[in-house]
Amino acid sequence: MASESGKLWGGRFVGAVDPIMEKFNASIAYDRHLWEADVQGSKAYSRGLEKAGLLTKAEMEQILQGLDKVAEEWAQGTFKLNPSDEDIHTANERRLKELIGETAGKLHTGRSRNDQVVTDLRLWMRQTCSTLSTLLWELIRTMVDRAEAERDVLFPGYTHLQRAQPIRWSHWLLSHAVALTRDSERLLEVQKRVNVLPLGSPALLPLPPPELNFGAITLNSMDATSERDFVAEFLFWASLCMTHLSRMAEDLILYGTKEFSFVQLSDAYSTGSSLMPQKKNPDSLELIRSKAGRVFGRCAGLLMTLKGLPSTYNKDLQEDKEAVFEVSDTMSAVLQVATGVISTLQIHRENMAQALSPDMLATDLAYYLVRKGMPFRQAHEASGKAVFMAETKGVALNQLSLQELQTISPLFSGDVSRVWDYGHSVEQYGALGGTARSSVDWQIGQVRALLRAQQASTPLPPALK
Amino acid sequence: MASESGKLWGGRFVGAVDPIMEKFNASIAYDRHLWEADVQGSKAYSRGLEKAGLLTKAEMEQILQGLDKVAEEWAQGTFKLNPSDEDIHTANERRLKELIGETAGKLHTGRSRNDQVVTDLRLWMRQTCSTLSTLLWELIRTMVDRAEAERDVLFPGYTHLQRAQPIRWSHWLLSHAVALTRDSERLLEVQKRVNVLPLGSPALLPLPPPELNFGAITLNSMDATSERDFVAEFLFWASLCMTHLSRMAEDLILYGTKEFSFVQLSDAYSTGSSLMPQKKNPDSLELIRSKAGRVFGRCAGLLMTLKGLPSTYNKDLQEDKEAVFEVSDTMSAVLQVATGVISTLQIHRENMAQALSPDMLATDLAYYLVRKGMPFRQAHEASGKAVFMAETKGVALNQLSLQELQTISPLFSGDVSRVWDYGHSVEQYGALGGTARSSVDWQIGQVRALLRAQQASTPLPPALK
Amino acid sequence: MASESGKLWGGRFVGAVDPIMEKFNASIAYDRHLWEADVQGSKAYSRGLEKAGLLTKAEMEQILQGLDKVAEEWAQGTFKLNPSDEDIHTANERRLKELIGETAGKLHTGRSRNDQVVTDLRLWMRQTCSTLSTLLWELIRTMVDRAEAERDVLFPGYTHLQRAQPIRWSHWLLSHAVALTRDSERLLEVQKRVNVLPLGSPALLPLPPPELNFGAITLNSMDATSERDFVAEFLFWASLCMTHLSRMAEDLILYGTKEFSFVQLSDAYSTGSSLMPQKKNPDSLELIRSKAGRVFGRCAGLLMTLKGLPSTYNKDLQEDKEAVFEVSDTMSAVLQVATGVISTLQIHRENMAQALSPDMLATDLAYYLVRKGMPFRQAHEASGKAVFMAETKGVALNQLSLQELQTISPLFSGDVSRVWDYGHSVEQYGALGGTARSSVDWQIGQVRALLRAQQASTPLPPALK
Amino acid sequence: MASESGKLWGGRFVGAVDPIMEKFNASIAYDRHLWEADVQGSKAYSRGLEKAGLLTKAEMEQILQGLDKVAEEWAQGTFKLNPSDEDIHTANERRLKELIGETAGKLHTGRSRNDQVVTDLRLWMRQTCSTLSTLLWELIRTMVDRAEAERDVLFPGYTHLQRAQPIRWSHWLLSHAVALTRDSERLLEVQKRVNVLPLGSPALLPLPPPELNFGAITLNSMDATSERDFVAEFLFWASLCMTHLSRMAEDLILYGTKEFSFVQLSDAYSTGSSLMPQKKNPDSLELIRSKAGRVFGRCAGLLMTLKGLPSTYNKDLQEDKEAVFEVSDTMSAVLQVATGVISTLQIHRENMAQALSPDMLATDLAYYLVRKGMPFRQAHEASGKAVFMAETKGVALNQLSLQELQTISPLFSGDVSRVWDYGHSVEQYGALGGTARSSVDWQIGQVRALLRAQQASTPLPPALK
Repeated sequence: MASESGKLWGGRFVGAVDPIMEKFNASIAYDRHLWEADVQGSKAYSRGLEKAGLLTKAEMEQILQGLDKVAEEWAQGTFKLNPSDEDIHTANERRLKELIGETAGKLHTGRSRNDQVVTDLRLWMRQTCSTLSTLLWELIRTMVDRAEAERDVLFPGYTHLQRAQPIRWSHWLLSHAVALTRDSERLLEVQKRVNVLPLGSPALLPLPPPELNFGAITLNSMDATSERDFVAEFLFWASLCMTHLSRMAEDLILYGTKEFSFVQLSDAYSTGSSLMPQKKNPDSLELIRSKAGRVFGRCAGLLMTLKGLPSTYNKDLQEDKEAVFEVSDTMSAVLQVATGVISTLQIHRENMAQALSPDMLATDLAYYLVRKGMPFRQAHEASGKAVFMAETKGVALNQLSLQELQTISPLFSGDVSRVWDYGHSVEQYGALGGTARSSVDWQIGQVRALLRAQQASTPLPPALK
Repeated sequence: MASESGKLWGGRFVGAVDPIMEKFNASIAYDRHLWEADVQGSKAYSRGLEKAGLLTKAEMEQILQGLDKVAEEWAQGTFKLNPSDEDIHTANERRLKELIGETAGKLHTGRSRNDQVVTDLRLWMRQTCSTLSTLLWELIRTMVDRAEAERDVLFPGYTHLQRAQPIRWSHWLLSHAVALTRDSERLLEVQKRVNVLPLGSPALLPLPPPELNFGAITLNSMDATSERDFVAEFLFWASLCMTHLSRMAEDLILYGTKEFSFVQLSDAYSTGSSLMPQKKNPDSLELIRSKAGRVFGRCAGLLMTLKGLPSTYNKDLQEDKEAVFEVSDTMSAVLQVATGVISTLQIHRENMAQALSPDMLATDLAYYLVRKGMPFRQAHEASGKAVFMAETKGVALNQLSLQELQTISPLFSGDVSRVWDYGHSVEQYGALGGTARSSVDWQIGQVRALLRAQQASTPLPPALK
Repeated sequence: MASESGKLWGGRFVGAVDPIMEKFNASIAYDRHLWEADVQGSKAYSRGLEKAGLLTKAEMEQILQGLDKVAEEWAQGTFKLNPSDEDIHTANERRLKELIGETAGKLHTGRSRNDQVVTDLRLWMRQTCSTLSTLLWELIRTMVDRAEAERDVLFPGYTHLQRAQPIRWSHWLLSHAVALTRDSERLLEVQKRVNVLPLGSPALLPLPPPELNFGAITLNSMDATSERDFVAEFLFWASLCMTHLSRMAEDLILYGTKEFSFVQLSDAYSTGSSLMPQKKNPDSLELIRSKAGRVFGRCAGLLMTLKGLPSTYNKDLQEDKEAVFEVSDTMSAVLQVATGVISTLQIHRENMAQALSPDMLATDLAYYLVRKGMPFRQAHEASGKAVFMAETKGVALNQLSLQELQTISPLFSGDVSRVWDYGHSVEQYGALGGTARSSVDWQIGQVRALLRAQQASTPLPPALK
Repeated sequence: MASESGKLWGGRFVGAVDPIMEKFNASIAYDRHLWEADVQGSKAYSRGLEKAGLLTKAEMEQILQGLDKVAEEWAQGTFKLNPSDEDIHTANERRLKELIGETAGKLHTGRSRNDQVVTDLRLWMRQTCSTLSTLLWELIRTMVDRAEAERDVLFPGYTHLQRAQPIRWSHWLLSHAVALTRDSERLLEVQKRVNVLPLGSPALLPLPPPELNFGAITLNSMDATSERDFVAEFLFWASLCMTHLSRMAEDLILYGTKEFSFVQLSDAYSTGSSLMPQKKNPDSLELIRSKAGRVFGRCAGLLMTLKGLPSTYNKDLQEDKEAVFEVSDTMSAVLQVATGVISTLQIHRENMAQALSPDMLATDLAYYLVRKGMPFRQAHEASGKAVFMAETKGVALNQLSLQELQTISPLFSGDVSRVWDYGHSVEQYGALGGTARSSVDWQIGQVRALLRAQQASTPLPPALK
């Protein structure tokens, strides 16, 4: 009889159990990650029960000591799982009973496992969000430090992967760093909604336990146990952040090809070929790029699982945890590897410089005509004709003679030669966010200030010990 | 020759054009929705050019008047598209040139279409977010009003679709309303990131045009033209909101079956069967449920498109607009139909009352024993035995005699009869977020306060005229 | 120095290694599942090398015996992984070298790991497809057997979850079984494309090794190592199959509510509540329903990873295996649990019978008028009026008097009473695929024949030992 | 009153209608695409009714002629929609009634709209699949023709975007063509499952109408009206095909950069920049790449909509059609544009040749040592040392002197010079699927034979007139 195995609902069932169903149903294989949050939550709950008069002080002390012992066993790796421990909550409660006897049976008075699981998950994720924030800031800081140090390196800016205009290498670094600041901003918003104490429907306790330091409480008990917005948001946060990193990885993979030769990945982040001795492959970057799919797949999976569910708790919600654990691990690795890649990457300044070519100044040539009074659209067309003329003659754009240029427009005169200077070109873009040196400095300052503000706004939660 | 059709890049191309490619490439079929934002953005830009000395005051006036005329033609439906108008920007500029001549060619000095399109889209979405916020608040308010009015109706609460405990009907309504308040909170956050002025790389203007009332400016020009976070966030916001509505719709579809018979949909939101004369189908609710898929599909599509793109603008980004337009339209319809459904729904109070049964008080029976001193786990097991005994004897749980109950535990005494009262049962859950009357009132107050705070925090953007 | 750890590309790298990168890069944690396929593939490859004169017979024998020893260690759980064993291929080759010395270094002559991994995965998946086919047939067979046994049980057919027309319970069972036959048909097609020997670009061998019994060979070596169609197809196959099972689960969850009370899940597939003693929750069905999300998430993730990848092998492809392993495990459990659920489910025939009501015969009433000569659309409207009249009078549809009916249409006469017979109603639907007894029998015969044909068409692959 | 507008279920409803709901519910805006299939299906159905004795021959003739008139109006663009025409079926039936009077009301005897819509969609998709097959074959054929013509052009093969080994340009072309042959194979399988006549539950007709030429009939009426496997399969087919095309597009975008300069897109498939006169952007290829996201989004959306639906028809299924129409249009455009791109692409043979470098022969150098008797792993390491030595000395790999090579291995001798020949290198890969000339010819033959076989196996369905 099932009740002999000590299952929580032991009183009623009389049928036998299908071992495949047992395994299908059990979550202990992954929710054991929550052991510390589970003990922490239960300790707070038992204090609440004491305040509400549902435990004596002595019973509470006994439970607290028992829970500390349970935690110690987990921490030391000596906790032994029973076959009937289907989840972390059952396991901890079973062990507590072994340690302190029947009083253990009072711990979950008026508390359903649906509350417990969501409290544990929120405690765990609060900590994870905090850790990931720190790793993300570290990555952004590395990028900004590097942008500051290499501010004077110019190379081609691309649109549509076609050479467009000269830019600073730092401008490229900052373009990705700035995208990541939006991720760190969003993560703080997600964390705010993670950090909410769920008060489930059967809660007999008048007040939430203050020692868990939640920032807010849920408003409706039915919603509290069955909403997984904070999980979905976290998964989407990770998906969008990975999309950014996949784009940065793509750029670096390209810049590291023989054909571009702008950057060289450190050996620590490359791998060789088992077949071709000359090869050094950017495995780290390819893995970063690929994880965007995996992470988004988890987000897609959860949303699909949630779609059309009847309200309140349904077992379908058990799908949340593996997604969270896998995505947290992935993000942690990706952020650290990306930081390592950026901090050890070599750049080839000469190749970067050589990749700049006069045709990338065609827009500047049009601006030259605009400054001489020609409407922009006409100037654009005139500059296009110059490009075409140079191509046809097989010379570089800056090698067209003044006479040749004047066949296109009489507005060209001797001072056109000043256009052909890459350093001068980038300095034109001095507007906020531009690629002039002052604009790049402004960006660096802005991102630094933003990180400081974000960090200040988030007192770290009391660490899971 | 392609340039004869007046294409912007006319100067250089010499090849013929594939008509299928033309159509494949063109976005005018859908981005015409942006006409007003495009005119608004161009007007602000021309004022900026004048301040920067790139337009004379007279030229600016000429351009502004021309743009007003363009807007008038769109508003009156008299704007005529040319076959070569591949997008709204080309169309408006082409028409402006027809109206005011060569000066039109000065309007986009130093402005790429990549900047223009993203500015237009942000202006359009800012307005849309504001509209959707209002519709969402309207839906929540309708739910809260109804919750307040029907506070005394009890019916079964379910978990796993199995009858669990008696709750107030208002508690159910609020569980969904509370979920939607998170959506409205998130929408404000999305809107904050939509409401950012993009300053693209070629910006020659030193200062952003203040008349567009953007809340912030982008930090990096390369990121500014190629990031679509605000689109992805919007699509995910809609997806999560639709997930909530799909769950509410599922509940109502179930409650409206013959078997539950708790609610009846208004005829205005039902449809009949072309075959079966007796049928009345909840088409409105099924459509709401189904749109969760469509909306999320658009989110999935965009994320996949973004994955691994090289940085800065790539034509792939053109996929953003149809997704935004379709999802905006869908959300607008869904929110209004949901409001209509809730405000016209009939509830069958007697059926709700009859669906309550004594076994739903089994938890209360366990609490009775807890109050007599039995540890909860034992009390849970004892109550389970009582349920099993009643089932075996074929009687309702409250029909077990005291003697019978005492064979399970000697702690049962005459006062157990007080357990069998549904009204008393719900009043036990007086904790914040519970189903007691006071808790429901507290929830109503909280949601109302929240809506007021949200509304106060968002001055509506200056409407697109 | 990295080469000291014996990495395959040891000759060249001089940098240190980031331990997080090491772990990020390693796949041994999951691809160890492939140990048997890897040994099997290597044995065939060494035979090929011998035939091509690249190994002597003695060397081949030495390698074959070494590989057998490696396999033995895996089978007996004595294989010890080294920290530098980053994947199953490296691990097996390293161990082979320990066992037989330098000759091991000849095994992979002209074979890249990209070929090896895809061969191993195809061997593994071929076996998995075969196993899943068998489990799927078992489920379908269970459903058909049950459909045959309970052919005479009638209950309501629903559309839009509204009662529609009386049907046979077997007709419902078969509706889901028939959907699953399409899945089994598709799985055979997937298996056909799994069962293809990849011949990678560096293949120096003139002929594929025949002993692996592949059904076909790849046509292009670049495509062979980088296409993952067979993985994507498998993941989508599983997704669509799960969609079917999620719909069946949803039906059964509904039919198992107190309100419907048509079915009762065996205790073996239910779980109790930790809080509410009276509850018995359909956890098995909810888990089945939820896994549709997880499985599809893996499919979505892989497609997104594949999107826009440069051709040939990129490390991104390493994402394929965890997806395949997780989905295979999930499908195996789901199919077995579903079979268990169906084979142990109790049905409540009386409740099913009682749920039939005269208004469900309104379509038959319309057909009655059609047979009297009224066009169908008019008959539909007339029958609708009868339903409305009955509702207004508060009586059942079959309790309207003949006089009352004749106020709607003079075509009604005494023989209308024959309409009110559920058994007669279902027998009208004798077309192929209908709910008449003969039609249900035909369906049973068709599905049985289909399973036989599918089974006959697929000789099981030689089992991985 | 709703019935006044002539709605099909007019008899019963008394409430007013919400115009937003009306629009939300209506599908005529897109399902009008089905007009021809709808008429075709109705004509066949009326013939069936006549055979079953439910229509007289005269009535049938009247209906057939009326339907022909309806079709004529659609074909000539004179069909006028009424506001109450919520879908194509209602519209056509309403018009038929106007044209021929009450007899029209007999057309849908025993036929529900759920059957009708799925029959129409299958007819439409059967035709679309056939069209897309033809376009796909055309693309493959173009690629194969080009591969045959340019068989002697060598260029670098890449893995991980790092130069790997010399290959034939045709080998690259064929790698993508071969992937597309799997798509065409799969499309035939999808088409087989599209081409099934659905027999819905209310079917009173004993036999399916033969003139629609369906290949099979559905087995179960409940499944027939509510399964959308054929839609999901079609959407996934398109998603996987787009993934292939996105990878080909990515390659070509890279090969068309200034840095690679292997190919140049025809002007017909490029676009200029509105800002930068010198630019020519590969918009066609970027659009192809991006559509992979859109198409997969539709697949994801439908699967999510299907997840957990109760069985038989629910209005949620109405989401199928817009997905199918959009994806069909997208695939048609993408396949034609891709064919145009491939057929007009210029290749730069000299750049391709110059991109080959001696280090790409390092694997050949290892094989050289293997042929001298060194085990492959040692040879791989020795060759790696040679690469490292060349890099350190700053010379090309083939410029190392024999003495230098002999410090690495005494097996090197004078004949090593024969390794340094790209043409010789590719000819080594003469295995099936390799890059030797004979292997490329074999591939061309195989793909051609495959296309012939596919085309032969699919008699085109009778075209929708």
